[in-house]
Amino acid sequence: MSRPAIDARAFRTALGSFATGVTVITTCAADGTPVGLTANSFNSVSLDPPMVLWSLSRTAKSMPVFEQAQYFAVHVLAADQAALSARFARSGSDKFAQLPLETGIAGLPLLKDCAARFQCQTSFRHDGGDHLIFVGQVLEFDAYERPPLIYHAGQYALSARRGDMDEPRSARMAGSFSEDHLGYLLSRASQQFYGPVRRQVHALGLTDEAYSLLCLLTLRHALSHQEAMALMEQSANAAAALLADLCDMGLIARHDEVEAMPRYRLTEKGMDVTLHLMAISKARESAVLSTLGEVDGFALKTLLLRLVREHSADQPDLWAEPE
Amino acid sequence: MSRPAIDARAFRTALGSFATGVTVITTCAADGTPVGLTANSFNSVSLDPPMVLWSLSRTAKSMPVFEQAQYFAVHVLAADQAALSARFARSGSDKFAQLPLETGIAGLPLLKDCAARFQCQTSFRHDGGDHLIFVGQVLEFDAYERPPLIYHAGQYALSARRGDMDEPRSARMAGSFSEDHLGYLLSRASQQFYGPVRRQVHALGLTDEAYSLLCLLTLRHALSHQEAMALMEQSANAAAALLADLCDMGLIARHDEVEAMPRYRLTEKGMDVTLHLMAISKARESAVLSTLGEVDGFALKTLLLRLVREHSADQPDLWAEPE
Repeated sequence: MSRPAIDARAFRTALGSFATGVTVITTCAADGTPVGLTANSFNSVSLDPPMVLWSLSRTAKSMPVFEQAQYFAVHVLAADQAALSARFARSGSDKFAQLPLETGIAGLPLLKDCAARFQCQTSFRHDGGDHLIFVGQVLEFDAYERPPLIYHAGQYALSARRGDMDEPRSARMAGSFSEDHLGYLLSRASQQFYGPVRRQVHALGLTDEAYSLLCLLTLRHALSHQEAMALMEQSANAAAALLADLCDMGLIARHDEVEAMPRYRLTEKGMDVTLHLMAISKARESAVLSTLGEVDGFALKTLLLRLVREHSADQPDLWAEPE
Repeated sequence: MSRPAIDARAFRTALGSFATGVTVITTCAADGTPVGLTANSFNSVSLDPPMVLWSLSRTAKSMPVFEQAQYFAVHVLAADQAALSARFARSGSDKFAQLPLETGIAGLPLLKDCAARFQCQTSFRHDGGDHLIFVGQVLEFDAYERPPLIYHAGQYALSARRGDMDEPRSARMAGSFSEDHLGYLLSRASQQFYGPVRRQVHALGLTDEAYSLLCLLTLRHALSHQEAMALMEQSANAAAALLADLCDMGLIARHDEVEAMPRYRLTEKGMDVTLHLMAISKARESAVLSTLGEVDGFALKTLLLRLVREHSADQPDLWAEPE
C-alpha cells in the first residue's frame, strides 16, 4: 500500500497544534563543560520508578555529550524565561555565560528561577527515528509555583485557566448582545473593578474625572491646561472647571514659572489624598487578582496590555515622556 | 549512594508544571470494537520519518488492545473539547456512544472537531518504567486551526500569545500606577473599545447611559422605572429623566398594562436605532479581535467573563431571567 509522502512543513505545523511547556536540558561533558539546549519534547513517563523522557535529534551537536552522559537535568521554564529559551535554542558555546548557576548531582549545571527542575539518571536511550529518546529516572526535583512558558503554533504563549467556559454564554435573542460581547465584558469588568474605589473617591467629594486627573499628576508631575485637556480627553471648559475645583479643594496648585503657560501640580495634601486612593485601588487589584490566580491574572493583564497598545492610535500614551 | 524516596504526590505536582496539550488516542480491538483514552503524554519525536510518541500505563485496561494494535490515531483536542477529554479519561465501555465518528486507516475510529489528528502505524514499543512508550509513524494527518485545550497544574487551561510581555511595563515613579495596573488596563481598554461606537451614539444625540438603556431593552423587552434604576445603577431622578428623554425621542414608549407599574419598551424606531448601534459595536468587536487573533480573543473573553462573574456579587446580572 503506497501513500503520498508527508509534507514536512505541514507536519510540523500540525504538531505545533499540540501545546507544550518549554524545557532547557543540561548536562556536563566529560571535561566538565556545561552543555544545554532547549527542548519541548519533554514529557512524563513513569511514576514508579519516577521517569521522564525527552528526545534529541541524532544530528544535534550536543548528541555525543548526551549519549555519554549518565545524568541530565530538565528545567521547566517559567512564563518570563522566553529569553532563556531563545538563548539555549541557538547554537554557540557561551550559552551559560553570566547565568547564575547551581550545581546538582554529579556536577549537573542547574538554572535558577524556573517553574520546576528534575535531576535525572539516564535509564534508556530508545530509537525514535531521526531522534533518540532519552528516558531518565528522576533522582531529585524542585517545583516552584510559577506561571509556565508555553509553546504553541510556533510561538511562545501563556496559559490561562479555562474556568467554566463550557457553560454557554448567555444571549437572550438574536438582536441583542450576548454576555461575551467584548465591549460589554470590558465595560462591566472595568465598572466592577472600580466600584469599591469609586465609593471612596465620592466619599472624599471627588468626581471620577478629578480622581483620574490626580492620578495623572503622579505620572506627569505638572500639567498645563492644554495638556490636561488632551490627556483627559475633556473639552476646554470641562478641563478648566476640573482644575479650578481641585485648586479650590487645595489638592493641586497653579505654578506660573513659564509666562502664559501656567502648570498645575499636586499639593502635599493632594499627594496624600491621591496616594490614599491609589492604595485602595492597588488593594482592589490584589483582591481581584487573588480570585483569578497568579497565572490567569498575568495572562489577563498581558492580553489587555496588547489590546490597549494595538488600539491606542488615537489616544495619548499616559506613560510617554512629556514633550 | 542512597537517596530519599521520591514523594509520588509531589512528583506529580512538579510534572504538572509542564503544560501540555490534551489528546485522545483511539484504536480498534481485534473484534472491531473502538477503544480510546485521554493522554497528555503525547509528543513529537521524528520528522523523517514522521513519528510521534505517547505512553500508556502497563496496568491500563486498554493495554492489551494497544499492545496488539498495528495502528492508532492521536487527536489533539481543541479548547472547547474538555468534555471529550473527560469522557475518554473515565473507564467505561460506552465512550464512543453518540459521537460522530469518521473511519480512518484500517478502520481507526476518528473523532471530529479537534485541533489536529494523526493516524499512525506503531513502529516501536519501548520500556518506560511502569508505562510503555508507543512510537508511531504518521501515515496521515489533518490540522485545523483551532485554539488548543491545555492541561497545566492539574487543570484545563487556555493558551494566550505572550506578545511583547518581556518589555517592561512602564511605571514612572514609586507613587504612581504602573502601566499594568489592572484598573487602568480595564478602564483604558474599555474606553478604547467604546471610542468609535461612542462617536456614533453621540452623533445620534444620545448619551452613553441612553445607549446602555436601549441595549438593556433588547435583553429585557420591557422595564419598569424601578428596574431601569436598579439595572442601570442610576438614581431615581436620573432614571426618570433618561426614560422621559427616550420617550420624547420616540425611541421607547410607555405601556400601562399593569396598573401603577408602567413599563417601557423599544418602539420600532428605537429598535432600528439600537440594532444600528449594536451592529457598529459588533463590527468594532470583530476589528479588535482580529488584531488579537482567535486564540487570544477567546482567552481574553474567558478571563474577563470569569472576572465579571467572580466579582458581581453586588451587581445585577443583565442576562438573568426577569423576576
